[in-house]
Amino acid sequence: MTLQVGVIGTGMIGQDHIRRLTKVLSGVQVVAVTDIDRARAASAAPEGAEVFDTPQALIRSDKVQAVVICSWGPAHEEQLLDCIAAGKPVFCEKPLVTSEAAALRVMEAETAHGSRLVQVGFMRRFDADYRRLKAVIDGGSLGAPLMYHSTHRNASVPEGLYTSEMPLNDTLVHDADISRWLLDDEIAGVEVRVPRRNSRGKELRDPVMVLLHMTSGVIVDVEISVNIAYGYDIRGEVSCEQGLAALPNRPAVVISDQHGIRQAIPEDWRERFIEAYDQEFREWIVAAGQGTATGPSTWDGYAATLVADAALRAVDSGKREDIRMTRKPGLYDRPAQAAA
Amino acid sequence: MTLQVGVIGTGMIGQDHIRRLTKVLSGVQVVAVTDIDRARAASAAPEGAEVFDTPQALIRSDKVQAVVICSWGPAHEEQLLDCIAAGKPVFCEKPLVTSEAAALRVMEAETAHGSRLVQVGFMRRFDADYRRLKAVIDGGSLGAPLMYHSTHRNASVPEGLYTSEMPLNDTLVHDADISRWLLDDEIAGVEVRVPRRNSRGKELRDPVMVLLHMTSGVIVDVEISVNIAYGYDIRGEVSCEQGLAALPNRPAVVISDQHGIRQAIPEDWRERFIEAYDQEFREWIVAAGQGTATGPSTWDGYAATLVADAALRAVDSGKREDIRMTRKPGLYDRPAQAAA
Amino acid sequence: MTLQVGVIGTGMIGQDHIRRLTKVLSGVQVVAVTDIDRARAASAAPEGAEVFDTPQALIRSDKVQAVVICSWGPAHEEQLLDCIAAGKPVFCEKPLVTSEAAALRVMEAETAHGSRLVQVGFMRRFDADYRRLKAVIDGGSLGAPLMYHSTHRNASVPEGLYTSEMPLNDTLVHDADISRWLLDDEIAGVEVRVPRRNSRGKELRDPVMVLLHMTSGVIVDVEISVNIAYGYDIRGEVSCEQGLAALPNRPAVVISDQHGIRQAIPEDWRERFIEAYDQEFREWIVAAGQGTATGPSTWDGYAATLVADAALRAVDSGKREDIRMTRKPGLYDRPAQAAA
Amino acid sequence: MTLQVGVIGTGMIGQDHIRRLTKVLSGVQVVAVTDIDRARAASAAPEGAEVFDTPQALIRSDKVQAVVICSWGPAHEEQLLDCIAAGKPVFCEKPLVTSEAAALRVMEAETAHGSRLVQVGFMRRFDADYRRLKAVIDGGSLGAPLMYHSTHRNASVPEGLYTSEMPLNDTLVHDADISRWLLDDEIAGVEVRVPRRNSRGKELRDPVMVLLHMTSGVIVDVEISVNIAYGYDIRGEVSCEQGLAALPNRPAVVISDQHGIRQAIPEDWRERFIEAYDQEFREWIVAAGQGTATGPSTWDGYAATLVADAALRAVDSGKREDIRMTRKPGLYDRPAQAAA
Repeated sequence: MTLQVGVIGTGMIGQDHIRRLTKVLSGVQVVAVTDIDRARAASAAPEGAEVFDTPQALIRSDKVQAVVICSWGPAHEEQLLDCIAAGKPVFCEKPLVTSEAAALRVMEAETAHGSRLVQVGFMRRFDADYRRLKAVIDGGSLGAPLMYHSTHRNASVPEGLYTSEMPLNDTLVHDADISRWLLDDEIAGVEVRVPRRNSRGKELRDPVMVLLHMTSGVIVDVEISVNIAYGYDIRGEVSCEQGLAALPNRPAVVISDQHGIRQAIPEDWRERFIEAYDQEFREWIVAAGQGTATGPSTWDGYAATLVADAALRAVDSGKREDIRMTRKPGLYDRPAQAAA
Repeated sequence: MTLQVGVIGTGMIGQDHIRRLTKVLSGVQVVAVTDIDRARAASAAPEGAEVFDTPQALIRSDKVQAVVICSWGPAHEEQLLDCIAAGKPVFCEKPLVTSEAAALRVMEAETAHGSRLVQVGFMRRFDADYRRLKAVIDGGSLGAPLMYHSTHRNASVPEGLYTSEMPLNDTLVHDADISRWLLDDEIAGVEVRVPRRNSRGKELRDPVMVLLHMTSGVIVDVEISVNIAYGYDIRGEVSCEQGLAALPNRPAVVISDQHGIRQAIPEDWRERFIEAYDQEFREWIVAAGQGTATGPSTWDGYAATLVADAALRAVDSGKREDIRMTRKPGLYDRPAQAAA
Repeated sequence: MTLQVGVIGTGMIGQDHIRRLTKVLSGVQVVAVTDIDRARAASAAPEGAEVFDTPQALIRSDKVQAVVICSWGPAHEEQLLDCIAAGKPVFCEKPLVTSEAAALRVMEAETAHGSRLVQVGFMRRFDADYRRLKAVIDGGSLGAPLMYHSTHRNASVPEGLYTSEMPLNDTLVHDADISRWLLDDEIAGVEVRVPRRNSRGKELRDPVMVLLHMTSGVIVDVEISVNIAYGYDIRGEVSCEQGLAALPNRPAVVISDQHGIRQAIPEDWRERFIEAYDQEFREWIVAAGQGTATGPSTWDGYAATLVADAALRAVDSGKREDIRMTRKPGLYDRPAQAAA
Repeated sequence: MTLQVGVIGTGMIGQDHIRRLTKVLSGVQVVAVTDIDRARAASAAPEGAEVFDTPQALIRSDKVQAVVICSWGPAHEEQLLDCIAAGKPVFCEKPLVTSEAAALRVMEAETAHGSRLVQVGFMRRFDADYRRLKAVIDGGSLGAPLMYHSTHRNASVPEGLYTSEMPLNDTLVHDADISRWLLDDEIAGVEVRVPRRNSRGKELRDPVMVLLHMTSGVIVDVEISVNIAYGYDIRGEVSCEQGLAALPNRPAVVISDQHGIRQAIPEDWRERFIEAYDQEFREWIVAAGQGTATGPSTWDGYAATLVADAALRAVDSGKREDIRMTRKPGLYDRPAQAAA
């Protein structure tokens, strides 16, 4: 049985997902595409796929069983509501939506529908390294987690396009989501501290240090550096009551030469998370084939929106900004992960 | 376009490949199976696949575009010759065949056919770590390779089933093949030395040390240990003129606890090479879809047969046993790797 | 030429330093000891050393060229002032003194004397790993430091004796001093955050997280855990503008066994810093032989006192507590390190 | 009590040992020096040391309690016999002597004396990494050792001065001695294999691979590379019945920059073994102060001579060359290590 998928948005990430669904993964077929730029949609469409004029038309088409949203953030709410109205499973790239109110509306619609339909694109949860890390923590042999050190370093960001708000409302959401997932916890408060500025990114507030206060009392300290030149370096270490668990080096060749004994560091997120993206869709295909969704949910997208808002407030106030979440619908309690 | 595949042999490895072709990979469908045990074939057959009475019938069936051979070694020659006669691409688990004469007959048939049809199951060539290692060596920045240290350690082997000949005619072929591939070289001679015996495998000649003398003069020293208890530990280090390149630790969580700072070691080959098996078939599907084969060839299977024979002679003689290969058919010169 | 040394205080640390000065190091002789417990002093005295009744008598004795203070903290001020009055070089175990006022009095006396006489026992500065780390930072190839992550983990602390204030007024001073030294900077403000409590140390505030705001804007985040069971694990990583520099694993045997591939972690500070203590005294002997002092100074002991005070205020206030230092006497500007 | 030492030979290594005995270590004083170049001896003599005209005069002088021999190899036999005749403890740099017959003569003289006087300069036995490695093997938790992989890599050797025989009669002795010590075993046979030549050292036989067959059956494979450019890289890994134990990376700063995540490799043996040389003399001073010797003995120097001879024969014969040792005098059974 092959899942018939429609893709909304055929920019860089949309094209990459079309490639993935077409050439890498099994049990899935891209049968429909749409984009605000119709020519771009036509050129991105794989053989046999229909090009639709509007997202709404694509979502409602009988040939489309499930939807992948790669449009820009402000368009997501309407497209998600259309998918839910049509009862079709939908994968939505981050951000889920761009305001708390929008997140609540999507959550209300999905809750009214009665079962999960939405998976949000937090790909780190599908990374093998993070999954093994979570398994160790959950295994309990190290005792309860007390602190989590998360470092998120980018070699560079596009000058002009990447603003000083983005470490907090764009980059941070990955660390925030993975903290919530890894620790099985929610974020209760956010603090931001701004260290000495990196002279390589002249106009930017870079790096930033963020403290996430979890409901359990765990403190997460996040270093976000977006111009660190040497590579894309994602690290995480959990301090537990009687031991540590940390992400390993990436499996690069161990070279001994005039630069020492060394391993290469990934250049960017594509290289670092390529398998995680594949696995993210592998599991989505299984769940969508059963008419539902697993993995990161609307609730997680809602939480991400709240963290981004709180972080922006915190950098201005210099204080801890609290997060108050609505009551969690039962729909989002501990979804079983789909079998891979 | 979906490749229609028939699988011969539905034992443990055959069942695993059927799972892989059915649930993991795209662009492929298992449409036919056969086994000397018909009931086992029937139970292993995925939905819609036909169970054939004989390998010959399966190979000749119009619905089968390409064949996967997972039967036992002595049956391979006839099945390979049938596939070549039918002009169908075939993936053959190792060993290709069980004698030099048989290897030459298969090679002759394929050469007469005029293009490659056979891919042999040396999965290490598809492992990401080995591929990155080869890329570093081929890149040339470390100068020419001079020595290669290959260690092949198994936690244990099935008592009674695994004999003292098997380190040399079964286990060694992986190190021999990967040495030939990594160094782009052939093996000219083999020596075997037998160290102090591991008391854990009482009746076995274990470990063994093998020296492979490559045509270029590179010496490969192989440690084969098959009862080392602690895990399945595959290592490789190339000493070049001005540096080293080595396989890294596997990407396990870095744990700090009462046992120190540590990373887990794979338990067995399934855990270690699971992605390599997937990739091996991913590339086979692409090539078979084009009516041909890439990756490890009949020539490589032939070389493996010669090495196993020479190693068995060398352990008895205590001397270097030379390998003399026939002239290499042009068919096997540097096949371009299929696009992944 | 052999330096004639008198040791004040012959408890555990005093006895260890006597052993060091007697059996490990050259160019030095312990000629005098004293302790509030005269019997303990007598039993700790090496052959030929005189046991004095009071610190004052020992300090003033003609046979004593330099003094090592290992008494308890509250006694340090008077003994230091006596040494300075006598113009004798003195090594003083931490804490230098126990109040800001006392530190200022010692600093005034030494400044009046006109040259350095006091070295404080911050042994980390003499550790080879930290020194290599500083050399990399000072080398400048990674750009300016922006953040420093310091983790200070103890397997356990003596129940009952170690109070909730001690992570902040005793343990933290090592991280604070090494941060000032490594970054060539001063601490301008301190924040303390208290994560979820480690249930292994029931009555203790453990762990704590401390943020040190350096004058340059660098932020240092310190994790102090004092009941983490698995070992004594001191880590440090500097995030610079274009790279990182971090302390390595300790050089333990790499074992592969049923617990994985692993290296042991030191059990306690004695094991971790044994060579640093030796080196600390090696350099003190050289400087004291020249009638002066190098290494950590009265100024550094004064800074440590201020940090401890600020950290205790910060844990109560929940806010950043600023540190205001007096004007730095020229005496303490960048002392040349004594030749080892 | 201070040991009065005379040093024979004040070339590079002699000068370094004089520095060590004078400035680094305690309980020792260099009171006499001699050299075939009297001016060099005079200039190397520390304050208060007498310059002697001949080794014999120095050895016999009443002011000399113990002797350090740093002259060239062919002079060692006579000087050692003189020391033994005088009953004075002697540290002798490698090689002990330059022929089997000479080694036997020295051994006979020392045996006739009735207790050990000679310590040979195999400094690796005093290296903390090797000692920890031996402790793990001796601890027995990994089972019996079966194979030992020893790699000995030099960045470069002095062109013209370093001949093709020297990897086998000069460099190899370190690996041979450390194998005997680590495994508590003797070498029964030697094989040499010559891989593809490193084009960086054009006239040299480099690298070489040596197999040492130990009496227990353990096989040691040694890679000796003397022009590998990237550094001085000494590695060792013991394969035991149920696990491995290996030397770790040297404790260099972990740098993450454009070259990857990396640690520096030592440049040469001085950097790598500086602490081992110190410790070697520290223990010698203790034993010599008691009128005896511990550590590497005349027996070990004799074994080294046999291995070098056998390796030179083996590279010519292409075969295993056996080593037959004389009966071991009881004097050399398991000497207790001097307390450090």
